[in-house]
Parts: sequence; structure tokens; C-alpha cells
Amino acid sequence: MSPAGRFFEDFTVGLRFRSPEPIVMSAERIKAFAADFDPQPFHLGDAGPDSFFGGLVASGWHTAAVAMRLLVDSDLGLCGQGAGLAVESLRFARPVRPGDWLRLEGVVTEVRPSASRADRGIVKFQTTVTNQRNEVVLDASHVIVALRRPAPSRGA
Amino acid sequence: MSPAGRFFEDFTVGLRFRSPEPIVMSAERIKAFAADFDPQPFHLGDAGPDSFFGGLVASGWHTAAVAMRLLVDSDLGLCGQGAGLAVESLRFARPVRPGDWLRLEGVVTEVRPSASRADRGIVKFQTTVTNQRNEVVLDASHVIVALRRPAPSRGA
Repeated sequence: MSPAGRFFEDFTVGLRFRSPEPIVMSAERIKAFAADFDPQPFHLGDAGPDSFFGGLVASGWHTAAVAMRLLVDSDLGLCGQGAGLAVESLRFARPVRPGDWLRLEGVVTEVRPSASRADRGIVKFQTTVTNQRNEVVLDASHVIVALRRPAPSRGA
Repeated sequence: MSPAGRFFEDFTVGLRFRSPEPIVMSAERIKAFAADFDPQPFHLGDAGPDSFFGGLVASGWHTAAVAMRLLVDSDLGLCGQGAGLAVESLRFARPVRPGDWLRLEGVVTEVRPSASRADRGIVKFQTTVTNQRNEVVLDASHVIVALRRPAPSRGA
């Protein structure tokens, strides 16, 4: 992708994208995220082997945030020329534990012009985050708005 | 709520809950979250008045993470006796800007025993996050699994 990112015209149904390199989930980052945003015992490191997950697991919202980073770093080409409208489903398929490394891949599923704004359109895509054992940990269906490429300015 | 939190038996359809006090979104926190998880210009402070949002806005995933914190702090009573399975919808209804303060309220919409595990059940609830002008910025439909209250241990 160009540094300017992908505009509405550049999205096509079936377009596939993937993250360039995995992100490793460390115990420190899992606990730090939880202290800020999801202070439950199994995300803070305060849950033992008899607890719900049998030990420390990442907040699903931490995994979702890491998925966003993998998405921004991917060749989907998001960099400020569009914005998320909604997530139509988000499934926390499997716990994420310290030392897991995560990668993302996805596919564009729908592309249509906006009914109300001529300068933009709606793009839908699905993403799947997998761990180092190729197990799905998160999948999601996203809806974004993407701007059309600006018309070239005319010379004098 | 008791410090131990709410078990499956304690959730009822129509149960309402709310966050105790708002969380203020600062420019520093918005940019720090974006640097970690969503490094797009309008979340990093690098987008001017002509950009998509006309300035700095929080990543939707930052708002979602803050919503989780508001939820944990609410009287819904989540503290390690259950876990998120999925989010059936998540709508970024309005941008969140520096200085906005956010609060959450919600309602339980479905409670049913697990079909496969006798020790737990499924609970669904909806949440709405509003800003200081009472405008909705995020709404979501959540699905969690909640453990049943452990049977009292028998005396000798």
C-alpha cells in the first residue's frame, strides 16, 4: 500500500490482508492493560489454577486492541482516510495467555457507496486472530466508512 | 454487590446497572492508547481541522476498553466468576474527544442455563456509554458465561 492508505475505490470484495509480523502477549502487558481497563483477578495475575481460566489470561478487550494494531500494521491500508462505524460481531473464541503470539488475517466482504454522502462509502470486512498454534482466539466482522480519493486539483 | 460478585443465579432479565462515576478522556491517554494499539493520525494528535474528524479523537477500541472499566466498576458485579464470550454488536456512535467524560449504563436482556455445562449459564446484556452532553458514543450487546454459586461445603 502507498503511505497514504487505501481509499474507497481501492477496496474490493475478496481482497485479503494480513498482519506483517506477530505481536507477543507478555504477562506484564496483560496485567498493565487489566489494571487500566479490566481489573478482574484472572487478568491481573491474582487467579490461581482453580480459577475460571486456571491462571492469567488477557482481557478480551486487550486482545481486541492488539487485533486493531495488527490491522493497522496490515496491508489493508488504514491510516486516517476512514473510520470504524461498528463491529457486527466479536467472538472471544479462546483465552490468550502470556507468551502467546498473535497474528491477524482478513477479507473484505462488502463494498458499497454511501446512500447519503457522495464523498465516501461503506466497507465491511472480517478478521481472524490466531495464536502460535494456529488456533483462533478472536474473530470479528467490521464496518468502516472510507473516503473516496480526492479529485486531482486543476492547474491554473 | 458483595465483593465476591454476582453468580449466574443473581442475574435477572431487566436488571439495570450503571457506572459509579465518569471517566475523563485526556489527550495524553488518547494518544498513548493510540501509540500502542491504533496508530492512525486522528488518534495520535497528528490530524488537523481538515482531517476526517477535524482533530484528535479516541480510538473506538480505547472507548470500548474504557467502557469495560466502567462495567467492571459498575454494580453489575463482574469480578472473576464469569467471562466474556462475545459481543453481538458494537457501534461507535459518535467520536470521543479530549475532555469528554464517559459513563455507562446497561440492562440484562437474557439469562439461560448452559446447554452443555451444569455449573454455568449464559447472560446477555446491553450497555450504552454516554458523554457529558448525554450523547451516546458507544453501544454494545454482550454475551458472557457466568458460574453458578458453589454449593455450600458440608460440615463434618
